[in-house]
Amino acid sequence: MTAIATPAGPAPLAVATPSAAYTLTLRVQLTTDPGTLGRLTSTIGTAGANIGAVDVVSRATHLIVRDIQVFCRGEKHGEDVVAAARKVAGVTIQSVTDRTFDLHKGGKIEVTPRFDVGSREELSIAYTPGVGRICTAIAKDPELVWDYTIKANSVAVLTDGSAVLGLGDLGPQAALPVMEGKAMLFKQFAGIDAYPICADARGVDELVALGTMIAPGFGGINLEDIAAPRCFEIERRLQDAVDIPVFHDDQHGTATVVLAALINAATVVGRPLEGLRVVLLGVGAAGVAITKILLDAGVQNLIAVDKEGALHSRMANLDPERRWVAEHTNPEGFTGDIEQALRGADVFIGVSGPNLVHPDWVRMMNKNAIVFAMANPVPEIMREAIPDNVLVIGTGRSDYPNQINNTLIFPGFFRGLLDSRATKVLPGMRVAAARALAEVVAQDGATEDYVVPSVFDPRVVPAVAAAVRAVAAENPTA
Amino acid sequence: MTAIATPAGPAPLAVATPSAAYTLTLRVQLTTDPGTLGRLTSTIGTAGANIGAVDVVSRATHLIVRDIQVFCRGEKHGEDVVAAARKVAGVTIQSVTDRTFDLHKGGKIEVTPRFDVGSREELSIAYTPGVGRICTAIAKDPELVWDYTIKANSVAVLTDGSAVLGLGDLGPQAALPVMEGKAMLFKQFAGIDAYPICADARGVDELVALGTMIAPGFGGINLEDIAAPRCFEIERRLQDAVDIPVFHDDQHGTATVVLAALINAATVVGRPLEGLRVVLLGVGAAGVAITKILLDAGVQNLIAVDKEGALHSRMANLDPERRWVAEHTNPEGFTGDIEQALRGADVFIGVSGPNLVHPDWVRMMNKNAIVFAMANPVPEIMREAIPDNVLVIGTGRSDYPNQINNTLIFPGFFRGLLDSRATKVLPGMRVAAARALAEVVAQDGATEDYVVPSVFDPRVVPAVAAAVRAVAAENPTA
Repeated sequence: MTAIATPAGPAPLAVATPSAAYTLTLRVQLTTDPGTLGRLTSTIGTAGANIGAVDVVSRATHLIVRDIQVFCRGEKHGEDVVAAARKVAGVTIQSVTDRTFDLHKGGKIEVTPRFDVGSREELSIAYTPGVGRICTAIAKDPELVWDYTIKANSVAVLTDGSAVLGLGDLGPQAALPVMEGKAMLFKQFAGIDAYPICADARGVDELVALGTMIAPGFGGINLEDIAAPRCFEIERRLQDAVDIPVFHDDQHGTATVVLAALINAATVVGRPLEGLRVVLLGVGAAGVAITKILLDAGVQNLIAVDKEGALHSRMANLDPERRWVAEHTNPEGFTGDIEQALRGADVFIGVSGPNLVHPDWVRMMNKNAIVFAMANPVPEIMREAIPDNVLVIGTGRSDYPNQINNTLIFPGFFRGLLDSRATKVLPGMRVAAARALAEVVAQDGATEDYVVPSVFDPRVVPAVAAAVRAVAAENPTA
Repeated sequence: MTAIATPAGPAPLAVATPSAAYTLTLRVQLTTDPGTLGRLTSTIGTAGANIGAVDVVSRATHLIVRDIQVFCRGEKHGEDVVAAARKVAGVTIQSVTDRTFDLHKGGKIEVTPRFDVGSREELSIAYTPGVGRICTAIAKDPELVWDYTIKANSVAVLTDGSAVLGLGDLGPQAALPVMEGKAMLFKQFAGIDAYPICADARGVDELVALGTMIAPGFGGINLEDIAAPRCFEIERRLQDAVDIPVFHDDQHGTATVVLAALINAATVVGRPLEGLRVVLLGVGAAGVAITKILLDAGVQNLIAVDKEGALHSRMANLDPERRWVAEHTNPEGFTGDIEQALRGADVFIGVSGPNLVHPDWVRMMNKNAIVFAMANPVPEIMREAIPDNVLVIGTGRSDYPNQINNTLIFPGFFRGLLDSRATKVLPGMRVAAARALAEVVAQDGATEDYVVPSVFDPRVVPAVAAAVRAVAAENPTA
C-alpha cells in the first residue's frame, strides 16, 4: 500500500479528525471535589480531542483514579492534549499509554500448530518417523505438496521496505508491522496463512532471486510496499520465474478497488465509463496499474499527471512504464499541470501525496464530479475542503465513507487464486474482481456515500474469490 | 535432522515394531455371526500388526460396521495386513484410511492474528493509518523492531531439502512437512513462532544470500536438513553475515543431546568421560558436531569412522571439516573399519544409516558398553539385536527408551537465544545446554533406561534456555 509522492502546487490546510489510530489512555488521579472531572474533560475537548471510555481504577476518601481514553489527531496533537491536561487543577496524570503501541507489543501474528502434539504417539506422526512418509510421498508425486502441507493455503508477503505506506523508504525492519498487519487481514478475511518476508535486498535481481528461491513453500506471493519503477520489473520477472501467482498489491489491489468504486460512482452520476474525462495524479505503482485497469474496463479519456505535468506521447526520458502510459492515454495531447488538467474533468483520482490539490482547482471540475483522493494517511485534498460541484468523494481513510481500501481485494483475490491453484495472475482476473466487488454494492443500490462495500461485508471475499476462480477456470493453463 | 548414510558391512535383519506412524483405520462391515470379529482380529494379529481402538459405526439386523485402528510396521506391511483382512469370511472392508496422511491434510501449522480485527477502529490500529506510527518509530529507532513486531519471537526454519531426515536429497517441497513439524514443536514446547522457508537454492552462495536477505524479519535462523559438507560453510558464512543467531540443528541439536546422554550414561556405567574409548560412525553434519562437542566436554579417545574407515591424521583428500576431525581425534592413529574399531570400545555412536552394524561386532565391545544407534527411522543396529555386554542403549526412535531426540534441545536453545537477543551462537552455549539437559535426569537419578529426559518433561525447555541465557550474559557482545 504505497502512496507515490508527486510534489506539485501549494499545500492547503490539513484538517485531520481524531482517530482510533491515535488513542491515548490517560491514567489520572482526580480530587473528588465537584467539577474536577468536568474541568479535565472540557480541557481535553477544547484541545481538540474526543473522549472515549472513562473507567474507575481505584477510589480513596478524597481521591479517585480513572483511565480516560482520548482520541487524538496525531502524535504532536497527543502531546499537546496531555500537556493541557497536566495543567488542570486537582488532576495528576499518573501515566499515558498509547493504544496503537500497546496492541503492537510483541507483534500481531503467531504461528500455531493445527493440532496438538501432546504425546509420543502424536510426535511420531507429526515429526519423525511418521513425517518421513509424507516427505517420501511428495518426492514421488510433487503434486501432493498441495494436499499435505501448508503450501495450498499460504502466501508470502514480500517487501524490501522501499515504499512503506506513504512514508517512503524505511527499510525492511520498519516495514514489518505493515506486513504483519497484512498477514492478519489475510487470515481474518480469507482464512489464508500469510507470512511476512522483509528482505534486505534492494536490487531488482536480488528480490527476484529471493522470491524465486522461497516459492516452493508458498502458494502465492504478495509483493508489498516496493518502490516504483523497480516494482514493475520485479513483478514481471518474478512471475515469469515461478509457478505460483505473483500480485503486487500496491498496484493491482488499489487499481481493482478504484475500478469498482468508479463503476458505482458512474452509476450514481448517471454517466457511462466511456464518456468520463478522468484525471489521475501520481504515476507510480498504483497510478500505472489504475491507468491499465481503467483502459481495460473501457475508460477512453484519461490524463495521467505527475510532477512533470500531464504525460503525453511526445514526451522524452520516460521509464518504460510511464512511456506506456504516455502512449496509451491523453488522446487529445493535453499538456499542462494538475491545476489545468482538472478544468472540465469529471473524475479526479489521486495516488500521490498529502495536500497536493487546492479546493479552487477542484471547483473548476464539471458538475457532479467524482473525487477519489487516496494519498494515505493525509489525502490530496481533505474531504471537508472539497467544493459542492463534487458529488462522490472517496479516500483511503477508514474514518470517512467510501474508503477505497485494497483490503477489499487482496484477501478474496488470493483466496480465488489459491482455490484454483492458479500459476499466474491474468489481467482478466482483475477486471472481473472489480466488477464482482462493484456488484456487491449494486445489489443494495449505490449512492454517493456508498460506492464501495465495507471490508467487513461478508459478501466481499466470496464474490471476489468466485470472480477470480471463474477466470482461472476459463484459462486452465494459467 | 539428517542421518548420514555411510555404507559399510552387511545388513542384518531389520525388525521394526508396529508404530503409530503407520496407523491404518479399517472401516469394516462384519456379519453378526459369532466369531467374525475374533477371526478378523486374530488374522490382523497373525499378520504382525497391533490393534488399537475398535469402534461401532452403525448396526443393522445382521450386519455391523466398525472402525478398527491397526498399527503396522511400515507401508508394505500395512498393505499385507489389509490383504489378509480382506480374505476373512464374513468381513467386507469398506475403506482404509491412514492416520499419518489424514493428520497432514492441509498442513500442520497456521498463521493467526494475536488479536481480532473485527471493527473499523481495530483495522485503523492494526493496519493503516495506525500501523504507520509503528513503522515510523522503528525507522527512527531500529531497536524497537524487537518490541513491536514478531521478530523477537520468530525463527526461520531454513532448508534446501538436500538431506531430508535419513531419506536423502528430496528437494525443498518434499522437505516442507519436516519444517512444518519443526515449527509445531517450536511453538508447542517453547512458544516460538517459527516459519518454514523451503528454498530452491542448492549452492552455498545462494543459500547464504537467501538467509542474509530474510534475516531482518526473524530473531534467529534454524538451518535444517542441509547436506554435508555444504552445511558447514553455509552455517559459518551465514552467521558471519547476519546479526541474529544461526543454528544448524542437525549438527548441534543432535550433538548436544548426545553429550547430555553420554554424561548420564557415563554416570550409569561409573566411568568418567575422559577415560571412555568412543567410536563414532558417520562423519556428516551430525558426526562432525558430535566430535567437536565431545572433545569440548573432555572426551579424549574418539575414533571417527566413515565409509573409508577410521579417520586419521595421515589421510589425504579430506574436505576441511573431516580434515579437522582427522587431526583432532584418533590419538593412537588407529586404521581400520568399523568392525575393527569397535573391538575394545566403550561407546558406539551411530549417525550413519540403517543396519550398518552387526551384533557380532558389538559383542567385541567392552563390558558395560554404551550404544547410541541414531540412524532414523531404522538404526545402525536394532535394539533387540544388541548383545548383553551393552548396558545403556539409545536410539533416535520415539518407541524405545532413551530417545536421543534433538527436540530436547532446539526449542529451549532458541528460547534462550531469543530471550537474550543473542547475535550469534557460542560453542559454550552448546556444552552448557547439554549439561543442563543431563542435569534434569541427574536430579531424578540416571539409570540404564533413563539417560535423557522425555521431550514432554516440563523442566527441559526452561533448563536449556537458562543455560543459553547464562552463557549469553557472560558474553554480552555475542
